[in-house]
Amino acid sequence: MLKLYYTPDTCALASHIALNEASADYTITRISFAREEQRQPEYLAVNPKGRVPALVTDQGILTETPAILAFIAQSYPKAALAPLDDPFRFAQVQAFNLYLCATLHVAHSHRMRGARWANDAASFADMQRKVPESVGDCYRLIEESLPAGPWVMGETYTVCDPYLFTMAQWMEADGVDPGRFPKVSDHRRRMSERPQVRDAIAAELT
Amino acid sequence: MLKLYYTPDTCALASHIALNEASADYTITRISFAREEQRQPEYLAVNPKGRVPALVTDQGILTETPAILAFIAQSYPKAALAPLDDPFRFAQVQAFNLYLCATLHVAHSHRMRGARWANDAASFADMQRKVPESVGDCYRLIEESLPAGPWVMGETYTVCDPYLFTMAQWMEADGVDPGRFPKVSDHRRRMSERPQVRDAIAAELT
Repeated sequence: MLKLYYTPDTCALASHIALNEASADYTITRISFAREEQRQPEYLAVNPKGRVPALVTDQGILTETPAILAFIAQSYPKAALAPLDDPFRFAQVQAFNLYLCATLHVAHSHRMRGARWANDAASFADMQRKVPESVGDCYRLIEESLPAGPWVMGETYTVCDPYLFTMAQWMEADGVDPGRFPKVSDHRRRMSERPQVRDAIAAELT
Repeated sequence: MLKLYYTPDTCALASHIALNEASADYTITRISFAREEQRQPEYLAVNPKGRVPALVTDQGILTETPAILAFIAQSYPKAALAPLDDPFRFAQVQAFNLYLCATLHVAHSHRMRGARWANDAASFADMQRKVPESVGDCYRLIEESLPAGPWVMGETYTVCDPYLFTMAQWMEADGVDPGRFPKVSDHRRRMSERPQVRDAIAAELT
């Protein structure tokens, strides 16, 4: 039985949706950022990084969304959530997820997590002002790279899809107009109609 | 035949070393940051992100170091550069590389690439001042997580090793004292003795 540590409105939603898509047997445990539970000894024993998500498995604990998504895809091959038999196409899936993780999510984090990389209030304000541009640049590149659809990799649904959907929830708060990116917006609408997505969101809110 | 686009003293070295470890048939092409070749149309046609590395394969072009490293490991299974038959252990390799990519490398980038996330000179100076602390925090977490060795995953050499070695080249310039991290320093010395590493570094300098 898997256990996913999550916080609502974080990137943990991507792994949560992927577990639904895989029909995995799992439970979820909420970590409250408001109560700073991610920095308490109990959770640091699970994930010394003090971040979500963390996935507890029979073999040990996994962190880092792209690694967890690939693990889910490989552990539930019947769900066909990644091209497991083609190293190049698997790497394309991973490269897309890496860009979300290390470029888009990082740009987004400068809106509220500036203290990771600077100390002065003026720097935080400067970072916040730049977020619509830096996050918008990421979506421009993603929009240009997306195929006609319906999914990130084309005809086949993969673990890229819940991850892009999760990131795209933050566009408005980041000051990025979704109307500039019709393919990303269509993808978001299409994803929001899937029961696996709706169930994950509902479970995180209760 | 593979072709690796690289720039000396960048994270491209990790993929370069991994290609040597895999005994892959490849060529390398240098992109000069000094001449801003990464922003020229010729290179943007290869990698629209304007970053290195990029790996040209028979099937297409790959970017993002952790994705390239996993691709090399899966494409050359005889080299045994990752636990390919165990999704959990493969995910552990990936999670380690993800931390280097999305946390350590990102912290490092605030020393010279502040313009990605802010606009004011004062913010860049503030970011630079924070780098010894933020990068040092990453190495503290890595040091605590490393097994006795000799490699990142223990007894078995994996694609985590060239990536950690590549990042560790930047410690001194980031204002981090390697003496604080004996396991990371031992790993760096051990790696620097491998012909696959020496050959990659020499090839990038010529």
